[in-house]
Amino acid sequence: MPKCSETRSNLISLLRGVEHFNSEVFPAKESLFSDLASGQSPGTLFITCADSRIHPNLITQTEPGDLFILRNIGNIVPAYGEMLGGVSSAIEYAVLGLGVNSIIICGHSDCGAMKALLPANQASLEKMPTVKSWLRNAEAAAAAALNDFTAEDAGPAIVRSLAEHNVLLQLAHLRTHPAVAAKLARNTLTLQGWFYDIGSGEVSILDEKTRRTTSVAEALKELELSAETQA
Amino acid sequence: MPKCSETRSNLISLLRGVEHFNSEVFPAKESLFSDLASGQSPGTLFITCADSRIHPNLITQTEPGDLFILRNIGNIVPAYGEMLGGVSSAIEYAVLGLGVNSIIICGHSDCGAMKALLPANQASLEKMPTVKSWLRNAEAAAAAALNDFTAEDAGPAIVRSLAEHNVLLQLAHLRTHPAVAAKLARNTLTLQGWFYDIGSGEVSILDEKTRRTTSVAEALKELELSAETQA
Amino acid sequence: MPKCSETRSNLISLLRGVEHFNSEVFPAKESLFSDLASGQSPGTLFITCADSRIHPNLITQTEPGDLFILRNIGNIVPAYGEMLGGVSSAIEYAVLGLGVNSIIICGHSDCGAMKALLPANQASLEKMPTVKSWLRNAEAAAAAALNDFTAEDAGPAIVRSLAEHNVLLQLAHLRTHPAVAAKLARNTLTLQGWFYDIGSGEVSILDEKTRRTTSVAEALKELELSAETQA
Amino acid sequence: MPKCSETRSNLISLLRGVEHFNSEVFPAKESLFSDLASGQSPGTLFITCADSRIHPNLITQTEPGDLFILRNIGNIVPAYGEMLGGVSSAIEYAVLGLGVNSIIICGHSDCGAMKALLPANQASLEKMPTVKSWLRNAEAAAAAALNDFTAEDAGPAIVRSLAEHNVLLQLAHLRTHPAVAAKLARNTLTLQGWFYDIGSGEVSILDEKTRRTTSVAEALKELELSAETQA
Amino acid sequence: MPKCSETRSNLISLLRGVEHFNSEVFPAKESLFSDLASGQSPGTLFITCADSRIHPNLITQTEPGDLFILRNIGNIVPAYGEMLGGVSSAIEYAVLGLGVNSIIICGHSDCGAMKALLPANQASLEKMPTVKSWLRNAEAAAAAALNDFTAEDAGPAIVRSLAEHNVLLQLAHLRTHPAVAAKLARNTLTLQGWFYDIGSGEVSILDEKTRRTTSVAEALKELELSAETQA
Amino acid sequence: MPKCSETRSNLISLLRGVEHFNSEVFPAKESLFSDLASGQSPGTLFITCADSRIHPNLITQTEPGDLFILRNIGNIVPAYGEMLGGVSSAIEYAVLGLGVNSIIICGHSDCGAMKALLPANQASLEKMPTVKSWLRNAEAAAAAALNDFTAEDAGPAIVRSLAEHNVLLQLAHLRTHPAVAAKLARNTLTLQGWFYDIGSGEVSILDEKTRRTTSVAEALKELELSAETQA
Ligand SMILES: [Zn+2]
Ligand SMILES: [Zn+2]
Ligand SMILES: [Zn+2]
Ligand SMILES: [Zn+2]
Ligand SMILES: [Zn+2]
Ligand SMILES: [Zn+2]
Repeated sequence: MPKCSETRSNLISLLRGVEHFNSEVFPAKESLFSDLASGQSPGTLFITCADSRIHPNLITQTEPGDLFILRNIGNIVPAYGEMLGGVSSAIEYAVLGLGVNSIIICGHSDCGAMKALLPANQASLEKMPTVKSWLRNAEAAAAAALNDFTAEDAGPAIVRSLAEHNVLLQLAHLRTHPAVAAKLARNTLTLQGWFYDIGSGEVSILDEKTRRTTSVAEALKELELSAETQA
Repeated sequence: MPKCSETRSNLISLLRGVEHFNSEVFPAKESLFSDLASGQSPGTLFITCADSRIHPNLITQTEPGDLFILRNIGNIVPAYGEMLGGVSSAIEYAVLGLGVNSIIICGHSDCGAMKALLPANQASLEKMPTVKSWLRNAEAAAAAALNDFTAEDAGPAIVRSLAEHNVLLQLAHLRTHPAVAAKLARNTLTLQGWFYDIGSGEVSILDEKTRRTTSVAEALKELELSAETQA
Repeated sequence: MPKCSETRSNLISLLRGVEHFNSEVFPAKESLFSDLASGQSPGTLFITCADSRIHPNLITQTEPGDLFILRNIGNIVPAYGEMLGGVSSAIEYAVLGLGVNSIIICGHSDCGAMKALLPANQASLEKMPTVKSWLRNAEAAAAAALNDFTAEDAGPAIVRSLAEHNVLLQLAHLRTHPAVAAKLARNTLTLQGWFYDIGSGEVSILDEKTRRTTSVAEALKELELSAETQA
Repeated sequence: MPKCSETRSNLISLLRGVEHFNSEVFPAKESLFSDLASGQSPGTLFITCADSRIHPNLITQTEPGDLFILRNIGNIVPAYGEMLGGVSSAIEYAVLGLGVNSIIICGHSDCGAMKALLPANQASLEKMPTVKSWLRNAEAAAAAALNDFTAEDAGPAIVRSLAEHNVLLQLAHLRTHPAVAAKLARNTLTLQGWFYDIGSGEVSILDEKTRRTTSVAEALKELELSAETQA
Repeated sequence: MPKCSETRSNLISLLRGVEHFNSEVFPAKESLFSDLASGQSPGTLFITCADSRIHPNLITQTEPGDLFILRNIGNIVPAYGEMLGGVSSAIEYAVLGLGVNSIIICGHSDCGAMKALLPANQASLEKMPTVKSWLRNAEAAAAAALNDFTAEDAGPAIVRSLAEHNVLLQLAHLRTHPAVAAKLARNTLTLQGWFYDIGSGEVSILDEKTRRTTSVAEALKELELSAETQA
Repeated sequence: MPKCSETRSNLISLLRGVEHFNSEVFPAKESLFSDLASGQSPGTLFITCADSRIHPNLITQTEPGDLFILRNIGNIVPAYGEMLGGVSSAIEYAVLGLGVNSIIICGHSDCGAMKALLPANQASLEKMPTVKSWLRNAEAAAAAALNDFTAEDAGPAIVRSLAEHNVLLQLAHLRTHPAVAAKLARNTLTLQGWFYDIGSGEVSILDEKTRRTTSVAEALKELELSAETQA
């Protein structure tokens, strides 16, 4: 039993939430969940930050069963190598086991992991050695992003720049995974980078080749055009 | 541009979802997101499977900002040691950086990772060496669970048993992380194991000491009772 | 040839000890050693510190062939994971290869490894980076034990508290090894934690559930009672 | 409580051994243990196998406080490198922390680890993957020893040859550790390889340069001679 | 002393080569070597295969002091991550310590490492487990290249295709190293991929964006044009 | 296109070198290269530093096809163990795949890696953490070499001493690789240590047993003598 009242009221609130879900929400989705009880076939692997402010299904207005969701701090994908862990195995499982046709890496504004990479915040990172070691996988993004700013910069602009460079770096890491490379070569998989701004709710699409951002509207236009052309 | 029409229509649907979120859903939550734009203070670290059928915020009826969410295949927490990756860093960040007061590990029915651990399914795992290596972190759960079943068993009962043993194992792993151990010693952190049944929408609470399951109603009764006693 | 006279006299003394063993001690045990020459079947895996003051066979009054003995600094058992070394392999060998029916982890008073974990002694650890890295496997014990003491404490009480927390942590690590978990599930293996006080020669038994210590006499009484009950 | 009667009687016997030690043995050694209660200064680091038939203090007729003892399967010392564990840290601690003046690596007859390296026994090793991985540190010894035998050989002669090559290999590994190399350069540390034959109780000394074995008597003669010469 | 006459005559020939170098070749380059005796400042880090048929300085007609040369099997650059070894350290040293302004990765025809990646040759790789593990760093290239060929293909065309995909993959890995990313962001470093055909002596330049090959003549024309434009 | 004129002129010069090689040098060696187009059978694995001032083929006056060449900073060979990378795989490939009959490790004067190991230069190493970690494989050489010098020494004498100790250490590491150990036991492989002085062009041979250096002339005399004796 938690001795601290704050913990207790937090757990009570979560469990009441479950009760509410069971009595008020689940009945309306009963047939969907019944269909899903014995299998899943999501089209997309969605990789994003563990940040509490990001709801992949809310942002994309998707239902249970649509997105296979991998979350860690900084939406990081270590490059394929000799040291393989949770991210690599989830990618392998999603691509080879589930056969997803797209992978989205979604970074976001005000990301704690990105802020921890700023020179101005190195001291706070010393107390968290495991976080520091994990963020080595984003160091090349920091090296690139910091080039455009001064060493004292720590505002939203540099955090956004870093988050965008980071999404592009993680997409490059993603391409080093054999399962991904094989499907890309066969044109049966598409990778996409997103940046999500918490305050405005807006998503920008990051282009790997041009390293520029596009709006959702523009990205949609392009996709619809290409659909017509090939039809 | 994706050449495959299935990928294209999938991406179009996700981006239209984002547009719908922006125009129809976001406005009603604008002030919440505006408050969250420059910071988060979630009370709970919620660790669950990447499975597309699990929506932590739907199940717990929580809002953006409430749950710091870590997802990988099999809701696994490698024990603390010399090899530290995404899970260890997220725990360190949640406990030391964000100061969460509770950690929930949530397993589920029909889990692909659990099924991959069954002797009957070893062949399919050979094609996914990284998944196989990752699942070593759940081997002790398999060793324990398989004791009650025959080698051919592969139905929902053994999968559920394995998922439950796995949640208990991952809770034990969690206790080996120094940041967690320190807060447990000070009684400022509570760990809880959940099992979520996709078909029925029901959550069971797993008791680490008795290794039995409790209903949400019972768990709530106990928590409320203890709140009164201490008040 | 050692150039230093201290080394030389040390080696001479050890080799004379061997000669004495051969001429005076071995003859009386010749038939035991002859039986053991082609095989061993120890009942217990005994894990303890490399400390020169601990003699497992003396303390337990056992003969050659009785205890399979694993020794390292701090009687540490890294949790099962991706990085497996000498301890993990000895456990696997003892449990699967030799079929031991019990594993004892024995900590002790005035343990150098435990003292090295105290905040007051961090400086001395800087010169021994490998020791520092090895002791990460005991960090969660330190985090828990230090909670009851001040940062300056470095006396026998905190060292003993740390050693006891450490034995409990290593027992928890032991349970994460699949070979151990499988036999525990079948009730064919028992784990026990000991604390040995060098000055008094006394052993205390650590209870994993209550986290309290029991005397040898009490532990014996319980075991004998349970033997009668089941008989 | 152990449910299996074999385990129970084993634990009862060990705890009665402790009681016997306390009442009958300890009193005679009380002043020695009292002196040792607050510190140790062993002259030798003794590295040997976890095998239950080896009693370092019995063989060398030494007392508590004399030997710092490291034990694992196969008396293995991984070479110094990027992956450092229990053995490396014990060496660093013994050499830098305790200042031992000699290190003895002691192999033995009928060693299970050596037998596991024989081509004839590969099948049995498949069930123990962690042991297999640990024994990579002895592979170069196997490669050298097997050269003199046929692939079917599995008798005492090849096991002894392998154990001797293994002691020489582990001595070479020992020399790659910086703390050891530094003291060797200053002539303040001596390394020695031993082979212990369980059935006869005899110890042979292995010469690293000539790769031949010497008797204890011969080794003693040489040491005593060199003592006189330098005196 | 080598007992085998083949080894002996090989060593004699190499040492006579050194004598010939000392008496006939060195004198003419004495002032160059004298200048180089106390420092180097190479402009390029040249990464190529250990293959005996490749002479970087012969192919590029460069002198001692011009190319910092890193060679391993398959001209592989593991992606930056938690496991860093010889290649990563050489890159860091070349970029940060020596300040090279360009890095060339040079693959070649008939590469044994590339051939080992072909499905048709998997059996031969089983005897070389370390090589197999190292080649994981080229697996994504194999996955992509094999897409255009049948499983039985093992001729020069597929080996060349694989070698080219591999150079492109290793260039992508190179971009994940922070030291490289930082200098690329500042436009003070250029990466280039080469394919060298042993039989014809021809070098082709691989374009990372278009994934096409260019001749040396074309590459030169482009470089000279851009030099004029910017002048 | 490189924006920096220095990079551009460097690349232009290298590519013009290739053109010169193609038109002026290759024709004279066409038949050699044509023979080599489909296979290599080098007699020697030559391991040396990446330093731009070392040309293995120039020093030994060898042709393409003669030396299988492995280069990294500090001519380092990590000991065989659980962490195997580029060097280990190249050794395995050279010994088992190509069947070389000799391995030469060649250190050199003014080596940047050796200088980085000196206490006087520790500060500069802090900016290159990967280099620092790689040089752990040479730490035992530094520990031994520094014994003869003061902590401030940083001149050519200590650098040479360190480079020589390092070659001897890497030869010891080489012997821990099973493929090497097996062929050494069969007397079908010879190891040799070299030290190359850049300013004078002289090579010294390092004797592993005596830890002394010999001139090339002496080494040749011994080899020729032993050839006659055995003939
Ligand atoms: Zn974030
Ligand atoms: Zn799952
Ligand atoms: Zn101790
Ligand atoms: Zn043994
Ligand atoms: Zn090659
Ligand atoms: Zn060098």
